[in-house]
Amino acid sequence: MEKQFTEHLKKINGYNEAISLLYWDFRTGAPKKGADLRSETIGILSSEVFQLSTSNEFGELISSLESKKDELDSVMRRSVEEARKDYDLSKKVPPEEYKNYVVLQAKAESVWEDAKAASDFSMFQPYLEELVASTKKMIGYWGEKNGSPYNTLLDQYEPGMTTEVLDDVFGKLRDRIVPLVKQIQDSQAKPETDFLFKQFPKDAQREFSNKILEQLGYDFEAGRLDETVHPFMIGINRHDVRITTKYDEKDFRTAVFGTIHECGHALYEQNFGEELSGMPVEDGASMGIHESQSLFFENFVGRNELFWKNNYELLKTHAPEQFSGVELDDYYRAINESKPSLIRIEADELTYALHIMIRYELEKGLFNGEVQVSDLPKLWNEKYEEYLGIRPANDAEGVLQDVHWAGASFGYFPSYALGYIYAAQLKNAMMKDVPNFDELLEAGQVAPIREWLTKHVHQHGAMKKPLEILQDATGEGLNAEHLASYLEDKYTRIYQL
Amino acid sequence: MEKQFTEHLKKINGYNEAISLLYWDFRTGAPKKGADLRSETIGILSSEVFQLSTSNEFGELISSLESKKDELDSVMRRSVEEARKDYDLSKKVPPEEYKNYVVLQAKAESVWEDAKAASDFSMFQPYLEELVASTKKMIGYWGEKNGSPYNTLLDQYEPGMTTEVLDDVFGKLRDRIVPLVKQIQDSQAKPETDFLFKQFPKDAQREFSNKILEQLGYDFEAGRLDETVHPFMIGINRHDVRITTKYDEKDFRTAVFGTIHECGHALYEQNFGEELSGMPVEDGASMGIHESQSLFFENFVGRNELFWKNNYELLKTHAPEQFSGVELDDYYRAINESKPSLIRIEADELTYALHIMIRYELEKGLFNGEVQVSDLPKLWNEKYEEYLGIRPANDAEGVLQDVHWAGASFGYFPSYALGYIYAAQLKNAMMKDVPNFDELLEAGQVAPIREWLTKHVHQHGAMKKPLEILQDATGEGLNAEHLASYLEDKYTRIYQL
Repeated sequence: MEKQFTEHLKKINGYNEAISLLYWDFRTGAPKKGADLRSETIGILSSEVFQLSTSNEFGELISSLESKKDELDSVMRRSVEEARKDYDLSKKVPPEEYKNYVVLQAKAESVWEDAKAASDFSMFQPYLEELVASTKKMIGYWGEKNGSPYNTLLDQYEPGMTTEVLDDVFGKLRDRIVPLVKQIQDSQAKPETDFLFKQFPKDAQREFSNKILEQLGYDFEAGRLDETVHPFMIGINRHDVRITTKYDEKDFRTAVFGTIHECGHALYEQNFGEELSGMPVEDGASMGIHESQSLFFENFVGRNELFWKNNYELLKTHAPEQFSGVELDDYYRAINESKPSLIRIEADELTYALHIMIRYELEKGLFNGEVQVSDLPKLWNEKYEEYLGIRPANDAEGVLQDVHWAGASFGYFPSYALGYIYAAQLKNAMMKDVPNFDELLEAGQVAPIREWLTKHVHQHGAMKKPLEILQDATGEGLNAEHLASYLEDKYTRIYQL
Repeated sequence: MEKQFTEHLKKINGYNEAISLLYWDFRTGAPKKGADLRSETIGILSSEVFQLSTSNEFGELISSLESKKDELDSVMRRSVEEARKDYDLSKKVPPEEYKNYVVLQAKAESVWEDAKAASDFSMFQPYLEELVASTKKMIGYWGEKNGSPYNTLLDQYEPGMTTEVLDDVFGKLRDRIVPLVKQIQDSQAKPETDFLFKQFPKDAQREFSNKILEQLGYDFEAGRLDETVHPFMIGINRHDVRITTKYDEKDFRTAVFGTIHECGHALYEQNFGEELSGMPVEDGASMGIHESQSLFFENFVGRNELFWKNNYELLKTHAPEQFSGVELDDYYRAINESKPSLIRIEADELTYALHIMIRYELEKGLFNGEVQVSDLPKLWNEKYEEYLGIRPANDAEGVLQDVHWAGASFGYFPSYALGYIYAAQLKNAMMKDVPNFDELLEAGQVAPIREWLTKHVHQHGAMKKPLEILQDATGEGLNAEHLASYLEDKYTRIYQL
């Protein structure tokens, strides 16, 4: 029975590998005239995966393994649990309705594009209303979890997470960040940043990015770095975990920090335990835990002064003119400039979480009945004013800036901020086992740091729930204190507050 | 019924697109640690395609379309014929035996590799004997065609081709080439070639290759150029036809002529008629016709003096030192040096066909009972002595040099030489419609040349049989005279014979 189960999974994995590669290729250089046929092909294989994942045969395999749960080893037992969860989620919705839901998303994404271009929320509003209504209906099929519709959504990305927990930690974090943002605005010690925006040729950026990836321990024999428009990490198969990046010749930070971020995701997947091979638990524990790995590397490593003590000279050899006469400290302060912005994806370390909280509060309201879709533009702008002190001039800059809602990805945003909180907690716990963290980073010896993460996070894949990983690694539950202190320390020094 | 047929094909095409991309990726940069899982995935999808292609449902669709043949349009009618041919070929062999046959090939390929490395034919001999025996058994299942076992194999690559025809044209061609090869060996006017082998950086080669592809009319919006070890052209989908090449920094000819060669294949597939979309006739008419397109561009365009009159200065800008002081005429003579060699894949225009004939004669003997596998090394060496005047020092240089036989690709080699003969015939016919061929080439205006090929060859795909294409385009049957005259003219001038 176990053999049939793994054989079935092997087939699903094969299809998924093909789909991942078709997608990766699409995003990294497939010729544009082939796009229509390519989309059709992805559709054909995806519907095959859906059929394999929802077949009665597979359901029976799951059931019979459940009936002898106690005889299964831990990997198989957790895999059966995961398989059951996904199977039920897919089976509970009538196929026809699920199809309509997917079609609605595709339509809404294209309307969102037009609405954003026209900066007109009213074009998008009826679609968003329908998406919210349809998602509520889906929640009805799935069965409400943890006491509220929005908690049901949270649980899909962050198993066990609830608004009660989030309200608490986000609230505490906000109370620490918002005053800091105001202090920074009033600070006289603002960093000079002009030199960041000089011409930095793409080839030199690529070369530097590759060297940094090597330093961080990214395995190039099990991955590769390519160029794309919207960067992502993708696991094609267990030993083929690819990174993509974007080279902006007028702002090298996009590629450098983007590559380090995606590298964090990739190190997670390159270091899943061998014993998870081919099983449903060979996956991140949650969106938030995945994001904790990318943000750990992007911020705690990549934006760390000691990392640049080791790498600034190397950077200079790739763009000698750009940084000529710029001291390390000035460089460090420049790349850590904090400035309230309207755009989440360009936000700095300090303000990033505020962007996420705004979306979280609005989403929660939408699903728990306190917010109407029609109120969103007004509420959005008010919250930006309140948290960040700036106000979008129009819908495109405001409520229409992200595609996520058009794709019905409700409940996903909080993971971005959660990942950041997790990362700070992991960093704090790591300091006990790796007390020479600073010296290692300054010497470019990242291995012990990465190995700690592999031991406490990577290798477990989805064998543990996110909060279990956190508890086992740090000895505590979700706690925003570490992130808040880190940000206060860092920005107090940079802005001489 | 037609709709179900095309829907079924759409699914097969989707799987094939995924397989092609997985293969392309494998050969152009997939990380090596992912190789095992990648092979498994290709295996999973391939067996799915096999099942779809041999299903009873598909067989019934073909039968019912055959029963109303007269109501079908020409594309559908030819497609049903092609589908029937492939279906029968697959269905006639008991699945278990076919599987063993494929396993034997995989095993033989790996033994061949070892045998070649050890330069020891005796290691490979038992496998080759089994391959020949198994292939004869397959012929038994498929049913002998055109009166002999070997003709059955020829027909699979070159529909309608027989040893009677090949013996005749190959004989005539050999009688013209062999004396020429001897004359060249005695010539005192040998070109200087040292400058060909200077350092030519990869990036500059890539840039030049891209410019040449553009000039030849390769559509970069429906394809791309990448690097690989053994170059190939691959149609991923109808609007995504990719070329690969290899950059040897000590011999730029590998990339330049290799790229032009693959471009010829790609122009064929980029210019299939729109009306063939998604049908089995959206394919080359035969291996030989496909090769005629690559060889037309490689030799009649790429090794043409007038092509270089237009492009030599451009080449020089990419490697100024290498060609400094080298006159166009000396360059032209150098790239057309003819010298008997032991290695087919490095052979020049003149001697290439002789390599093919040797393999053809041996294969024919194997399948028509006149040659034993154990005789091959001796016969191989004797024929090289006779046709090319040189003798391999060992099996690795001789009978073991090609992988084809290990993969049971018997009957495939002749297509290489046939393609060359077709190309010369097409060139001759083209001169009547495009009398200013020389001026066009010298001016870099390749469009009218390519369009003639599209009109007479490309657009038809597999709607016509190879000899039909030849007859319709040139007004004659297979005829080696044009190739022989071309070679005599060209080499008489180059070597001042």
